Amino acid sequence: MIILLRKQASMEEKTQLLSLLSCFLESHPALEIVRIGHYETIAIDAAALDHMQATIIRNHGVVEDVVTVDTPYKLVSRAFYKESSCVVVGKDHDCQEVAIGDSSELAPVVIAGPCSVESRDQLLASAQSVKNAGAQMLRGGAFKPRTSPYQFQGLGIEGLKLLAEARQLTGLPVVTEVMEPAMVDVVAEYADMLQIGSRNMYNYPLLRAVGSHPLKRPVMLKRGLSATIDEWLLAAEYIVAAGNPNVVLCERGIRSYDSHTRNVLDVASVPVLKELTHLPVLIDPSHGTGFSRLVPVMARAGIAAGASGLMIEVHHNAAQALTDKNQALSPMQLQSIVEDTYAIHEVLNGVKQSALQIA
Amino acid sequence: MIILLRKQASMEEKTQLLSLLSCFLESHPALEIVRIGHYETIAIDAAALDHMQATIIRNHGVVEDVVTVDTPYKLVSRAFYKESSCVVVGKDHDCQEVAIGDSSELAPVVIAGPCSVESRDQLLASAQSVKNAGAQMLRGGAFKPRTSPYQFQGLGIEGLKLLAEARQLTGLPVVTEVMEPAMVDVVAEYADMLQIGSRNMYNYPLLRAVGSHPLKRPVMLKRGLSATIDEWLLAAEYIVAAGNPNVVLCERGIRSYDSHTRNVLDVASVPVLKELTHLPVLIDPSHGTGFSRLVPVMARAGIAAGASGLMIEVHHNAAQALTDKNQALSPMQLQSIVEDTYAIHEVLNGVKQSALQIA
Amino acid sequence: MIILLRKQASMEEKTQLLSLLSCFLESHPALEIVRIGHYETIAIDAAALDHMQATIIRNHGVVEDVVTVDTPYKLVSRAFYKESSCVVVGKDHDCQEVAIGDSSELAPVVIAGPCSVESRDQLLASAQSVKNAGAQMLRGGAFKPRTSPYQFQGLGIEGLKLLAEARQLTGLPVVTEVMEPAMVDVVAEYADMLQIGSRNMYNYPLLRAVGSHPLKRPVMLKRGLSATIDEWLLAAEYIVAAGNPNVVLCERGIRSYDSHTRNVLDVASVPVLKELTHLPVLIDPSHGTGFSRLVPVMARAGIAAGASGLMIEVHHNAAQALTDKNQALSPMQLQSIVEDTYAIHEVLNGVKQSALQIA
Amino acid sequence: MIILLRKQASMEEKTQLLSLLSCFLESHPALEIVRIGHYETIAIDAAALDHMQATIIRNHGVVEDVVTVDTPYKLVSRAFYKESSCVVVGKDHDCQEVAIGDSSELAPVVIAGPCSVESRDQLLASAQSVKNAGAQMLRGGAFKPRTSPYQFQGLGIEGLKLLAEARQLTGLPVVTEVMEPAMVDVVAEYADMLQIGSRNMYNYPLLRAVGSHPLKRPVMLKRGLSATIDEWLLAAEYIVAAGNPNVVLCERGIRSYDSHTRNVLDVASVPVLKELTHLPVLIDPSHGTGFSRLVPVMARAGIAAGASGLMIEVHHNAAQALTDKNQALSPMQLQSIVEDTYAIHEVLNGVKQSALQIA
Repeated sequence: MIILLRKQASMEEKTQLLSLLSCFLESHPALEIVRIGHYETIAIDAAALDHMQATIIRNHGVVEDVVTVDTPYKLVSRAFYKESSCVVVGKDHDCQEVAIGDSSELAPVVIAGPCSVESRDQLLASAQSVKNAGAQMLRGGAFKPRTSPYQFQGLGIEGLKLLAEARQLTGLPVVTEVMEPAMVDVVAEYADMLQIGSRNMYNYPLLRAVGSHPLKRPVMLKRGLSATIDEWLLAAEYIVAAGNPNVVLCERGIRSYDSHTRNVLDVASVPVLKELTHLPVLIDPSHGTGFSRLVPVMARAGIAAGASGLMIEVHHNAAQALTDKNQALSPMQLQSIVEDTYAIHEVLNGVKQSALQIA
Repeated sequence: MIILLRKQASMEEKTQLLSLLSCFLESHPALEIVRIGHYETIAIDAAALDHMQATIIRNHGVVEDVVTVDTPYKLVSRAFYKESSCVVVGKDHDCQEVAIGDSSELAPVVIAGPCSVESRDQLLASAQSVKNAGAQMLRGGAFKPRTSPYQFQGLGIEGLKLLAEARQLTGLPVVTEVMEPAMVDVVAEYADMLQIGSRNMYNYPLLRAVGSHPLKRPVMLKRGLSATIDEWLLAAEYIVAAGNPNVVLCERGIRSYDSHTRNVLDVASVPVLKELTHLPVLIDPSHGTGFSRLVPVMARAGIAAGASGLMIEVHHNAAQALTDKNQALSPMQLQSIVEDTYAIHEVLNGVKQSALQIA
Repeated sequence: MIILLRKQASMEEKTQLLSLLSCFLESHPALEIVRIGHYETIAIDAAALDHMQATIIRNHGVVEDVVTVDTPYKLVSRAFYKESSCVVVGKDHDCQEVAIGDSSELAPVVIAGPCSVESRDQLLASAQSVKNAGAQMLRGGAFKPRTSPYQFQGLGIEGLKLLAEARQLTGLPVVTEVMEPAMVDVVAEYADMLQIGSRNMYNYPLLRAVGSHPLKRPVMLKRGLSATIDEWLLAAEYIVAAGNPNVVLCERGIRSYDSHTRNVLDVASVPVLKELTHLPVLIDPSHGTGFSRLVPVMARAGIAAGASGLMIEVHHNAAQALTDKNQALSPMQLQSIVEDTYAIHEVLNGVKQSALQIA
Repeated sequence: MIILLRKQASMEEKTQLLSLLSCFLESHPALEIVRIGHYETIAIDAAALDHMQATIIRNHGVVEDVVTVDTPYKLVSRAFYKESSCVVVGKDHDCQEVAIGDSSELAPVVIAGPCSVESRDQLLASAQSVKNAGAQMLRGGAFKPRTSPYQFQGLGIEGLKLLAEARQLTGLPVVTEVMEPAMVDVVAEYADMLQIGSRNMYNYPLLRAVGSHPLKRPVMLKRGLSATIDEWLLAAEYIVAAGNPNVVLCERGIRSYDSHTRNVLDVASVPVLKELTHLPVLIDPSHGTGFSRLVPVMARAGIAAGASGLMIEVHHNAAQALTDKNQALSPMQLQSIVEDTYAIHEVLNGVKQSALQIA
């Protein structure tokens, strides 16, 4: 159940409500005021209140309304918030601001860059070519979750500093992965957006950490290897319920049985998610297919399915990449993807309007 | 290994080669002359010939060349035949001819109609509205593979006759499913294209029966529920090796674990198949998602991924459909899909050309 | 809904009821009298009768009772028939009779033999060693469903004759696969049990053909590659509803993503099926794992899970096998499996009795 | 590549080797001396050394031998260490010691207890009944990874204290889950064994934290939701390479498509793992099936497949359990499982010996 607060409520009144709720809900997990669109909200487990307590809350002076949402996820549910959220990246650093969302005015966002930050030269060269190709954000891994303990594990904080330098050079905001709660502070300091990787989608302490961090950095939450849509939305709910509503989902393929692709890109998750949640959805055709030659085609398919953007691995010299070399594109191919993206988005806008007339 | 025959070879010479091969290959399964594009070919298991026999065949007067193909499938492999096959449907009945293939001149084909033929009124009304919406072919099940023996099993031959009447009314060629070897004759008589359903992809006697049928009716081969790409291409090879090169593949979703969709539509199978085979590939977003509201979006994604056409379930009154009512579209929605298809195809043609300049 | 017939009903009375039902249920698929345990039954789709018709049937003189079963499958449901079915194999040929079922008196059955019948020598040697190792039934493929059209497809009718000869030699009843309706007659003539392979579990015309065949040969129905338990039971229902109650299920692994085994043997399907159906369940650890070194262990696990028997691939010279050589055991290993089977079954009988005291 | 150290090497000599290696391997992830059986080892990525460096290491006075292991995992590989590891739990607290391993002298270990620690009364009652039923270790969750942020998240440190009290009461060593690196210290203080849950199998910072913790607490590593066997062994390698060789694997089912069970228990992973690794393997039939009525059967199957023990959810009042109530057994049912376990283990020991005579 979601409690909507009155707009003119004072900080003291809100604090007082939170205290009251804390008394009522002793062992209740998260209790934060979160802004979703125009509303300030507190989400709680409805079953945790008895009838009397519920009545008290409902009639509390700060409470505007109380909304029941049938799905297990609450704040991220479109049943609760009908509009589409727009997540703005890059507000706190000296770079361009990028809006990720789902409206006809917003063109899809292309995020591109190398799998790993490998060196200053590699990153700056890649960043410049990503910028030249027309992408709006830079990606690059400083902390790398590797299947083997003997593989290259990333440059760590050194990599974060290089990403900040690349941002300064290009004006592109930067997204990079954070792998453990203790590192959220430092990654949030350098990055404009925090990535929760596929392997950490069920890492609830980490989700809580990026949700409750005071900077409220936008978070890109990738789908777990075999996560259901509901589990994924509940992972997003962890972040939002902890206080950070700036979450973007990213479909990156699910595990299946055929070896011709690394994963099966579940393109249909895009329209399914758009019905269930107000959060934006991106497509990662690089991990979704695992082979660079399939990436441009699946980027088109993702945009045609209505994704709010793409996450693409690019390397200025793919054959030399330390990680994921099979799926990295050249900067030239990236430029072609950016052009396709705009072209298909334009057609879709026409398409949507004719569909509107029919529906 | 594939034996290419000389163009000017006489029927007697060819028969003589076949006899020789039969002597060499006693327990060898299929031995047919099949035309693939410009070539007349005979495919055999290379390991079945000893060195001496191989030399005799290689030097035989009718043999132009002998080609080794590394994949388990041979005649359907693009490693053997570099061009894209074009399958023409509707040549033998009084209706329009429809070409299915993968070239910039060929627009994607939209095949639409009800899941099942339920009655004369239902089918003729549906067929007319499918035609009006701009689709080029009519689908409809006369023999229905149903999960339960107590469910409606289709009208059978009566249904075939109604499909023929619908073709006469609209001029649209007709595709319908055949479920057992004994029925291939009658289905081939009435239909313009034979569908092998997902449940029968591994039904090798049926594949051989539609492959060796003298009418060589085009076959639409749907992907098995959990079939690998290689198993699917080998199923196509069964049909082609039995004498019928007119095969079109249709991706219809694979089984997975999430209940928000009936299947996971493996959109990436389209670009993967285009590399591996010269056969055309369609997308069936109706079975691929299981819900009509997801079909238009996934139709766009399929076309954007380069599919040569769509297979769509339409019912003039979906709520009343006897089978698969959740996934049937209205004729009005179909029209919108047809328009999207052309619009995206046009963009893609531009896209492909700019991609060509880069590659 | 299942109609139970009175025990003393005459043939004419029954025929009269069937005619009446046929009038009521024009397009209804199957309408056969099937004996399940002590009952003669007719299963129909309850929704196909209107209220008046249902009343007439309910009050008909031949009708003892009418039972509603909530699951989609009816006659195979344990909700309908509480006891465990026992299927007897080998009644019509000169060989030992083997009872497959689930009771403490019945030891699990071990069925063993080569994947394919390859030659007279191979089969007779294998059959003799299977017999010596203590197995009770002989398996061997005469018609082989092969993934590629260029692979060995089996000896066909010649193979059936060799199987009959092996039965004569050893006294072991024989199970072999049938792949198409047109071959049911000849396979039923030679074999004691008809196998429906994994690839044909959804082949409904074939299921109907083995169900309605006048010899009512016992059928071993393997689970489809990715079949749900419900789909599998409905496939069994197809056979039973067509008139043949002698069905045995065989779990042989489902498709998954790990390459260390060919399939994932779903051992838990055994206790799940025992709750849902009265039909016996076997385990096939050969296909379930794909590697001979894993077979003995998984045979033990299957028996410990309560399977009514095992289906094992054995070859007297595995390295030379034409098909599935990786998973074939030696006769010596088979003997060890037979011994394990009895030892574990004995323990389980003790176990079951102590569990009975607790439950 | 694995470096084996001489037995008589002094601490200074070892430190000197480590320093040398650190110079050679600047960006190399883990560099610890780990004892595997009788050997002290250092595992490194072979490719990280050039030829000259490799020669220096090979000839270093402290180095006994250098072993190359072909699999991606090294220290956990049976190719490296042929014996079966035995992990002893309970050494540092006042309780009985339990040895988990794979030899005929070691009976399988039964670990049982509630899903969550809910209260002092619940835990102590459960612990006592688990002890009375014959189990050797107590499980219970203090930190619970829950799919929803609104669900009960466990009692936390309070729960750890209750587990310690239950150990004192019963003498049973305690295993409980740790979810984040920052909590390893406190969980290791109270618990005898640390559980890494299925959702954290890819949580590499957590794996490193339990691996490098000075107490070297035994770790139970559950298989990830859809983890391959190789990914699982590499997760174990993370722990071992960080310095802690006391790892036990626990199969708990993998995600699949059928809803009759919560997961598919991959029983065959037990014999597969026994070939690949020297680490012990347990089976968790509670999560593996999700339904208490299936647990006893699958416990038998797991033991018959050679598991070194069981992980079972038990609640003294299952209907009232706060978490996973569907899969919790009664203490009485647990006792029956313990008895089955011994009975089957005894048979298997006989079985193994007769198999030895054959192999």
